Amino acid sequence: MREKKPLRVALAGCGTVGSGVGEIIVNRAGELAARTGVRFEVGCVLVSDVTRKREVPFPAEVFTDDPQALLASEYDLLVEVIGGTDIARTVVLEALAAGKPVVTANKALLALHGAEVYAAARAGGTCVAFEASCAGGLPIIGPLLRGLQANRVRSIMGIFNSTCNFVLTSMLDGGMSYGDAVQEAQRLGYAEADPTLDVSGGDTAHKLCVLASLALGSNIEYERIARRGIDRLQLTDLRIAREMGYSCKLVGIGRRLTPAPTGQPQQLYLAVRPTLIHCDHLLAGLSGTRSGVLVDGDVVGETFYSGSGAGSLPTASAVVADMIEVATGSAQATFNQLCVYNDCTPPADYVDPEEAEDSYYVRFSFAPHRRADMLADVDHAWRDNPVKRLQTHVSRDDHVVVAITAPVKPKLLGAAVRSVAGHLQLSDEPVMLPVLEARGS
Amino acid sequence: MREKKPLRVALAGCGTVGSGVGEIIVNRAGELAARTGVRFEVGCVLVSDVTRKREVPFPAEVFTDDPQALLASEYDLLVEVIGGTDIARTVVLEALAAGKPVVTANKALLALHGAEVYAAARAGGTCVAFEASCAGGLPIIGPLLRGLQANRVRSIMGIFNSTCNFVLTSMLDGGMSYGDAVQEAQRLGYAEADPTLDVSGGDTAHKLCVLASLALGSNIEYERIARRGIDRLQLTDLRIAREMGYSCKLVGIGRRLTPAPTGQPQQLYLAVRPTLIHCDHLLAGLSGTRSGVLVDGDVVGETFYSGSGAGSLPTASAVVADMIEVATGSAQATFNQLCVYNDCTPPADYVDPEEAEDSYYVRFSFAPHRRADMLADVDHAWRDNPVKRLQTHVSRDDHVVVAITAPVKPKLLGAAVRSVAGHLQLSDEPVMLPVLEARGS
Repeated sequence: MREKKPLRVALAGCGTVGSGVGEIIVNRAGELAARTGVRFEVGCVLVSDVTRKREVPFPAEVFTDDPQALLASEYDLLVEVIGGTDIARTVVLEALAAGKPVVTANKALLALHGAEVYAAARAGGTCVAFEASCAGGLPIIGPLLRGLQANRVRSIMGIFNSTCNFVLTSMLDGGMSYGDAVQEAQRLGYAEADPTLDVSGGDTAHKLCVLASLALGSNIEYERIARRGIDRLQLTDLRIAREMGYSCKLVGIGRRLTPAPTGQPQQLYLAVRPTLIHCDHLLAGLSGTRSGVLVDGDVVGETFYSGSGAGSLPTASAVVADMIEVATGSAQATFNQLCVYNDCTPPADYVDPEEAEDSYYVRFSFAPHRRADMLADVDHAWRDNPVKRLQTHVSRDDHVVVAITAPVKPKLLGAAVRSVAGHLQLSDEPVMLPVLEARGS
Repeated sequence: MREKKPLRVALAGCGTVGSGVGEIIVNRAGELAARTGVRFEVGCVLVSDVTRKREVPFPAEVFTDDPQALLASEYDLLVEVIGGTDIARTVVLEALAAGKPVVTANKALLALHGAEVYAAARAGGTCVAFEASCAGGLPIIGPLLRGLQANRVRSIMGIFNSTCNFVLTSMLDGGMSYGDAVQEAQRLGYAEADPTLDVSGGDTAHKLCVLASLALGSNIEYERIARRGIDRLQLTDLRIAREMGYSCKLVGIGRRLTPAPTGQPQQLYLAVRPTLIHCDHLLAGLSGTRSGVLVDGDVVGETFYSGSGAGSLPTASAVVADMIEVATGSAQATFNQLCVYNDCTPPADYVDPEEAEDSYYVRFSFAPHRRADMLADVDHAWRDNPVKRLQTHVSRDDHVVVAITAPVKPKLLGAAVRSVAGHLQLSDEPVMLPVLEARGS
């Protein structure tokens, strides 16, 4: 018998994503039932203010502002779309302890308390599904858990935060300063009133933590991810990068550093930082609110996934997909069997970020009256320097000289750039940004 | 207990993909078992010539050239990587009838006999998994079955045949004729000795049939897919397209034609044909042996998937992923519950390809001595024509004039072009190719 009895849903949160979930499961209930054999009944919805008017297709009596009332209601599946690690953590852990499966879109919860959440699901004999946590509606958890499971993943990198991507695209296309672009993003609803978590790289690091833990089979601590945001980027560097064939994006990257001896864990490099991406690289094409992930598996090679970013319905698309997975039993089967979740993987072995080699963009700025000589000055100051330059670019209008270096460890680069700068009369501190060449194209 | 007892595998076929499967499951048995709790034991391997030397890690006694011996062996899972619809069909159907799950990489079998195969799995109380059938190692079946399940898919399109893509890239980058590029692809092992199935569009149509059936929820007949190959393409058009900002690829496309009244099935447009793709479209960036798929879902919007194409290990990556899915029980749970397979979906309602509107590239070729007047001649001949031109491009070196039309039905276009050509002294028949503008970027 394909048609199952309706699954009673306790919905924790009814903001942007929650109302999208409601819209999908109510308005296309018949279509979903025909295709998947599953019907959902929302019996209780947790909100912070029950008196607020909402454009969601739920009857008034299902709303509560009491987490314990939600947990005491009759339900088969908890859907958590509150966000944060406070009430969300409580309701998720209590539902799991009661043996109820959980679908969550909460990257912060999984990044900061993943092992605890997975262990609670294990102890409760149930499961947790979280396709919606990392890339809006783009399916990326599924491919990592399933389609790529024959691979040892060598690296995973991506553009995970559509707010940052929108701000960077606006700066460059609109010739705006960082501050103006953030205001524009807020005006259009792409950035929160307090955009700190996005622009500082925190949100990207949450998502990287969840994805890299699964992909690299290690229990990665969020705090160990090196993190730099976009808030100090200057339009000048975005423009010059484009002249040189690169685009600047906030990239999260997790990679195994060196081939490890058999049986030895490999050291992991984990970082979130503004990065110049060569225009032939797959990630370079992701503009505006698009996000994307590039996974390098040792058997399959590079596979790439991209989508049009977050928002109510795209993220709800992934939440509902997980709800169906829970209903079919597929989510439970996968959760039981795979040893890729933080509660059963070994602690990650981290490489010191100072030891990880990358190419770098280095910009030297001169006072306008010095621009005639500046290339000769840089060439002279750089001579005998152990860090090799791959190319040098001069922009007389901006009175800057830019070098792209060969791959180098940050501490060597820092010393080299200080040494070069010591011989120059610069108008400003040198700017250094890591570079991703076109390998991933 | 996570560690399951070993799954005994009957492997039908030990060519390119089969030997890749053997390499993965033997050489990384310990790693797979640690991560997935699954061990595979290959007990019997069906090959056409048991005396041939093979670079695979199986003992000599497992090989047989008798399909009945394979089916009579003790196994828990049949892996079919023979290809074709002859022996492959027999062993798949017999294994399913015996209640054994099947993992297959065989797009031809599923395109031509999908409903029969799925029904056999249903009757046998087992399942069939086929992630490897459509895009090498790139997970695309998984996202369609799972991550995108909350969506009504509006269209699915992609570049599914790496041989064709390699030939087209070689023609353009190497300035080769079609024939020379095919020979080059054969020399490098990217094309079969008989490349007909690839270059005629047949292989692309097989894959489109499988993917579009799942994505659009209809039982699509392979024979109803309009099909045109790359074998009559000329280097001239590839070059001129590039000058105009387009690249030429063999594209498979399935889309719903019009919004249907509630409860009514929507007509489907299904075609495989050489297509000019605007350089800002996501599919345009797929060069060489890369393949990719663009899925437009009504909730999530456009999601895009790409990978580095077929070959032994990439395709084996997807086969082994499916073997793990069968072992965890996830494949069975999904197969039981979703009504998206050809044995339980309604027959597709096809639109007449002549009724589907597209923009077109139309090339008029002139004798060299006429090239001074050719633009004025085309403008004059086109005046009063009901088909609108969006742009017109002149290449005096090639003595051609190219028009890109507004969206138009093929039968109207054909009449319009014949009428224009009737007023011109052309050196050759006009060339017409459909155009994909940058919507998908």
